Amino acid sequence: MYTNLNRIKRDIETLSGFNDSPGEGLTRFSLTDADRGAREYLRKELIKIGLKVYEDSAGTLFGRMEGTDPDAPVILIGSHFDSVRNGGNFDGPAGTIMGLEIMRVLKEKNIRTKYPIEFVGMIEEEGGRFGAGVFGSRAMTGKVTYEDLKRNKDENGISMAEAFETFGFDPHKIDESARKSKDLKAFIELHIEQGPVLENGNIDLGLVDFIVGISEFRVIVRGRPDHAGTTPMHLRKDPLVAASELISEIGDYAVEAGEGTVATVGVLDVKPGAANIVPGEVRLTVDIRSKSADCMKSVRDSIERKLDELAKARGVTFEIDDLLSVNPVTMSPEILSVLKKKADEEGFPYKVMTSGAGHDAMIMASITPTGLIFVPSKDGRSHCPEEWTDYEDLQKGIELICHTIIEIGEAQ
Amino acid sequence: MYTNLNRIKRDIETLSGFNDSPGEGLTRFSLTDADRGAREYLRKELIKIGLKVYEDSAGTLFGRMEGTDPDAPVILIGSHFDSVRNGGNFDGPAGTIMGLEIMRVLKEKNIRTKYPIEFVGMIEEEGGRFGAGVFGSRAMTGKVTYEDLKRNKDENGISMAEAFETFGFDPHKIDESARKSKDLKAFIELHIEQGPVLENGNIDLGLVDFIVGISEFRVIVRGRPDHAGTTPMHLRKDPLVAASELISEIGDYAVEAGEGTVATVGVLDVKPGAANIVPGEVRLTVDIRSKSADCMKSVRDSIERKLDELAKARGVTFEIDDLLSVNPVTMSPEILSVLKKKADEEGFPYKVMTSGAGHDAMIMASITPTGLIFVPSKDGRSHCPEEWTDYEDLQKGIELICHTIIEIGEAQ
Repeated sequence: MYTNLNRIKRDIETLSGFNDSPGEGLTRFSLTDADRGAREYLRKELIKIGLKVYEDSAGTLFGRMEGTDPDAPVILIGSHFDSVRNGGNFDGPAGTIMGLEIMRVLKEKNIRTKYPIEFVGMIEEEGGRFGAGVFGSRAMTGKVTYEDLKRNKDENGISMAEAFETFGFDPHKIDESARKSKDLKAFIELHIEQGPVLENGNIDLGLVDFIVGISEFRVIVRGRPDHAGTTPMHLRKDPLVAASELISEIGDYAVEAGEGTVATVGVLDVKPGAANIVPGEVRLTVDIRSKSADCMKSVRDSIERKLDELAKARGVTFEIDDLLSVNPVTMSPEILSVLKKKADEEGFPYKVMTSGAGHDAMIMASITPTGLIFVPSKDGRSHCPEEWTDYEDLQKGIELICHTIIEIGEAQ
Repeated sequence: MYTNLNRIKRDIETLSGFNDSPGEGLTRFSLTDADRGAREYLRKELIKIGLKVYEDSAGTLFGRMEGTDPDAPVILIGSHFDSVRNGGNFDGPAGTIMGLEIMRVLKEKNIRTKYPIEFVGMIEEEGGRFGAGVFGSRAMTGKVTYEDLKRNKDENGISMAEAFETFGFDPHKIDESARKSKDLKAFIELHIEQGPVLENGNIDLGLVDFIVGISEFRVIVRGRPDHAGTTPMHLRKDPLVAASELISEIGDYAVEAGEGTVATVGVLDVKPGAANIVPGEVRLTVDIRSKSADCMKSVRDSIERKLDELAKARGVTFEIDDLLSVNPVTMSPEILSVLKKKADEEGFPYKVMTSGAGHDAMIMASITPTGLIFVPSKDGRSHCPEEWTDYEDLQKGIELICHTIIEIGEAQ
């Protein structure tokens, strides 16, 4: 192994110390003292390696190792280092210290690549403080404006623009964080899986081919509230019974659509919501995810067909409000093929899989060829204090990207 | 017709004026100024007829017409005159003014019965203020104690005992409201149907044979909260999908049980309740009503069998908490048969039916032979400002009970 297990462990554990909720998981919101602590640790480690350390105008931390070709576009490696409230130690940091550890390896092995390589540590990927998720990567793609910074506020009413100034960044310069495609060769991210697939299959690494698209919408089913005692079954228009027929079939629609498509009803509200009143209205959310837009459409079509059928059979009406629509994103097939080759060479068991969650990689893919790999999440859990990845698995992920970088970066 | 449509209309409209939510339906909670207004109107009307007017220690208003036999047990006729919050003008008052109008008829037609007859106007049947439903009738059956009066509080923390004192009743004497079975010959109530059956069948009157029993319980289904994007369908333990399978079948269980049995899921809460998280826990209520205890048990058994099946098939666990269990109550077959005979004689279209809601009659049946009739509810609605019964229908109901009283009371 080129990488060093002890350093990886120390990086994760040190970053875990910059935490605003000790004893209740990790809370490291953007532009706080915990952010500064983590940032300064990373900066110090990057400087130790001899890198040129800088921050862009969105607060993303970089550490640059020049390539032998001074005009070559850069390879970015890393992830985010902010967390959700009461989250865990791996979601974000696992990928951030991947970038750090690979820089150390390149330095100590004196590996010079043709292409420059930059460590990337992004903030506000979770949107935990300002509700502005995948912020660092969106800023790099030029999608964030000063108006956004003024509009996004934390729970105390502090805008991101104000927080930028307090922290020492100039919010008026946010445009300068945009990167041009021609200046980028690749972005490679490592992330915890946040699901049970790898652990369940006893597989060390997931190589991501697609990040799923998301179609999220609200279904409102309206019937007629009635007295639960005095209304015979055949005279009811019960929207909860109708919704239940739909919900009990939604999983089948996803499985029939194929390609690992998933569909979830996570919210369901019943009005008026009394034990002795037949419901009058039900509101539920549907979240469909797939690497195939066609599969998502197929599930949506099945749901609408079923609702039409229920409207006729149960005397209810329905309405659909779209909440979110994100297209599936393809990870670079070239990078994926290098990742596969290197995993084979290193003898790491892997699985090509779809990412069911969005990540900075999803955004970066719009401006540069992007690769994403997963390391296993214990019990499939994340965003909680119990979030865990075995250090040996994490090391394998970092080692894989390290060898991939050496090839893609065209080490001399 | 013995009864007078104009008086009936005037009674309903006058009582509607004693209202704490003008413009937003009728709100007449117990032991308030609105209660006192309605009570004084009824008292004045009863005194006009020449009745002996008194209140029992539970605040129920009576107006007594002596029978020719001084030792004969009494026939009680009436209902309650409190309302739910923002309710309508008929739920309660329709039956209360039935008692009043019949007393007027007996007086003006100079009809003397062997048995004494008492008008009854009860409070807190709805439990709207103190949450202590069917209060007046429970007090008459000796089921209410001073401790209950201290425990039952309104939303401002005022106990029923305090409200009693403020209003002018002595809460320490609550025991004295209990009636002995030997002193009672019958209780006959008229109530709005609060359901769609009469209107749907274009039938004027419902003669009640049974008041349904109620079995109410909470089902908690537990699965595992998972990320809606990263968890494949086959690895989920989704309690909402399991609950939906159950809910979509509950109506069938009720229909299969027969005897007009109904079953309702009126409350359903999903945790954690986010669009992008597979639910971890679902809590729902089941309300089963039937005139047959066996039918109620059959539905409950079907639900438990289904839950066992779902636990195996879906990897969820479940728990059942009993909330309410009330046995079906039989209305007096003798009174029912007189009601039928008189309806035939008067040419009133009627239907023998089960009451799906509890009423004071349900409580009174434990101490005396009890009769209950329904008048139609427009669109089956009640407990809302739109609550409506055509005055002509209400008059037929009152007329029917009037003739029934004359027979049962053994008019000379």
